[in-house]
Amino acid sequence: MNIYADNAATTEMSEAAINAMTDGMRNWYGNPSSLYTIGQKAKEKLEEARAEIAGIIHAQPREIIFTSGGSEADNQAILTAALNGKKKGKTHIISSAFEHHAVLHTLKKLEKDGFTVTLLPVHESGLVRPDELEAALREDTCLVTIMTANNEIGTIQPIAEIGAICRARHVVFHTDAVQAVGHLPIDVEAQQIDMLSASAHKFHGPKGVGFLYARKGIVLQNLIEGGAQERGKRAGTENLPGILGMTAALKEAVGAMEQHNTHMKKIRDYLIRGLSEIPHSALNGDAERRLSGNVNFSFEGIEGESLLILLDQKGISASSGSACTSGALDPSHVLLAIGRVHDVAHGSLRLSIGEDITVQEADHIIEATKEVVAYLRSFSPVWRDLTEGKKEFILK
Amino acid sequence: MNIYADNAATTEMSEAAINAMTDGMRNWYGNPSSLYTIGQKAKEKLEEARAEIAGIIHAQPREIIFTSGGSEADNQAILTAALNGKKKGKTHIISSAFEHHAVLHTLKKLEKDGFTVTLLPVHESGLVRPDELEAALREDTCLVTIMTANNEIGTIQPIAEIGAICRARHVVFHTDAVQAVGHLPIDVEAQQIDMLSASAHKFHGPKGVGFLYARKGIVLQNLIEGGAQERGKRAGTENLPGILGMTAALKEAVGAMEQHNTHMKKIRDYLIRGLSEIPHSALNGDAERRLSGNVNFSFEGIEGESLLILLDQKGISASSGSACTSGALDPSHVLLAIGRVHDVAHGSLRLSIGEDITVQEADHIIEATKEVVAYLRSFSPVWRDLTEGKKEFILK
Repeated sequence: MNIYADNAATTEMSEAAINAMTDGMRNWYGNPSSLYTIGQKAKEKLEEARAEIAGIIHAQPREIIFTSGGSEADNQAILTAALNGKKKGKTHIISSAFEHHAVLHTLKKLEKDGFTVTLLPVHESGLVRPDELEAALREDTCLVTIMTANNEIGTIQPIAEIGAICRARHVVFHTDAVQAVGHLPIDVEAQQIDMLSASAHKFHGPKGVGFLYARKGIVLQNLIEGGAQERGKRAGTENLPGILGMTAALKEAVGAMEQHNTHMKKIRDYLIRGLSEIPHSALNGDAERRLSGNVNFSFEGIEGESLLILLDQKGISASSGSACTSGALDPSHVLLAIGRVHDVAHGSLRLSIGEDITVQEADHIIEATKEVVAYLRSFSPVWRDLTEGKKEFILK
Repeated sequence: MNIYADNAATTEMSEAAINAMTDGMRNWYGNPSSLYTIGQKAKEKLEEARAEIAGIIHAQPREIIFTSGGSEADNQAILTAALNGKKKGKTHIISSAFEHHAVLHTLKKLEKDGFTVTLLPVHESGLVRPDELEAALREDTCLVTIMTANNEIGTIQPIAEIGAICRARHVVFHTDAVQAVGHLPIDVEAQQIDMLSASAHKFHGPKGVGFLYARKGIVLQNLIEGGAQERGKRAGTENLPGILGMTAALKEAVGAMEQHNTHMKKIRDYLIRGLSEIPHSALNGDAERRLSGNVNFSFEGIEGESLLILLDQKGISASSGSACTSGALDPSHVLLAIGRVHDVAHGSLRLSIGEDITVQEADHIIEATKEVVAYLRSFSPVWRDLTEGKKEFILK
């Protein structure tokens, strides 16, 4: 049994997305900036895609620019608000402690350039509190950037409340919605979002493509300078096949969203109940206000990396909270932000299930995890110390 | 007869590239940063591709980072040299007057940040003179960025000579090789290139992917901050299908390069001879030191835009020198740089032929262009003034 349970990292492309992309590669290779027919046809396709995507998030087509993905969109959005703010003497930015690195690292860079950053706490629930945002706002705040849903623990922020607060105070509000677009309803008008980042490969679209929504009136600053594509705001020949693939994937994801969420929530909660039976374990993040595909557990006395390798041997592709890409094996900044201590954060498992997951697969995940956790604990010195009372359990 | 003669703008994907991309989309969707098998397999594929591309340009695999295309690579290369230079108090940059906008606009931005930019003349030939480069170098020069081949007139710069001069003076040398990679032999060692930008869709690869070569020892500055992909130098989930498509296309292009160039040169020169029969016309750029696919002509007394539209009606997709994407219809900065006056620059035609072009197609292009130019001149007030002696001809 092979179960892919790392959909928050990336998803398998849908048939519709592959077909749209193939159609783009074969039939719409013209450069949309050209005058001749095959270029103009490519331009039509491009603008159709833009209108389609805009419609899905309740934006205007000219408020969408296509990027190479979520990270680029995050970088450009934050740079835009920062540079525009600086012109008015506003150099304070509010974010949260557990944003994606595309946001946090960009903010770090801005701090070196003289900006001040306030990171709101996210509490044990993994949720930002609107009253704390309100209290953190200053006269010189030029940007609030809070993710719609967290990539590790799946918690969903009160975006409409945040949006309302920012709008009332005339502060630009950006949300990294990379985990949310295609999975949750998005309405930039109703939620009063000024800028939003999305990535196609998180909703069964192609890799290497995403988009940035920027409300009319926001003067985008370029991250990539060059040609006049995307109304001069993002240079580089448009990746039309990728954009067509993304559009097909998003249409499909949004069309089946309710049905998928109902099913995944059922399995998610089934997994949570099953994994809760493992002693000295705990769910990370709010149990209700989370993505329907996200399950994130900490298990005391084990290492996440070994857990993943053994689960892989049992056919389960999952991830841990730790930043394995850095090679440093630091514990996840997300889990630390919700108050997990280093040791506990290290022994964590993120399952991000897909909409086609079955109860049988969930059973296999639960059984395998129980088995592997017990096995790893059987020779863990930390576990021995815990059971022998030399150390105290943190998780019940 | 449909003839696509705008391969400098973008190319049709090759079957090999489409197949590699489809293989990537279907079979290698795992996130290369993950620990589990399908992620690790994706990582292997990624590193194979990196090694393949590095080998082709005589670089080391770790000297290659994947980007979303040529514009991004240009931006990152220039930013890198500028920021690294600034740390040592070096803020002078040398480039040429007819670089791509991804270079020129990035330099404009740096000028606002206190950098000084010298743009070398490119003369009527469209060629930079090494002695003029040598003379322009200063103690505080931190970067020389000269394109390998021009995108409008196809002229090929003396890259190895430029590289040798820069290396001797310890100045970083970057080349925008977007028009050259896959079309000309590149050897970053022999040519002493420190950084090089490339774009897949210019050699029958996919859109939305490219690479930046940066010689070992050059500390890259991030353009896109976030995750630790590409050794922390370019954030965002790797576009593996795109990278596989690019690699397949490049392998194929390089394998058939000599054969393609021999054929295209023959047709190019045939086109040049044919179009030269049009009175008061002139080839733009050196006749010999140019890409084998590039033909660029100016015709006195006509407008490039109308020429393109009428050629399109005759099944020929071509472009003019003018920056049609800007909507401003300014004459091409490239043609102005080689000394064409505004009016003449306006009436220009770029044909960038593909390797499958036939003599019959070339004949059709010549006939169609002759016909269209004559037709446009028949009601052009400028042409009337010229023929009536009220204005003087510039082109013989």
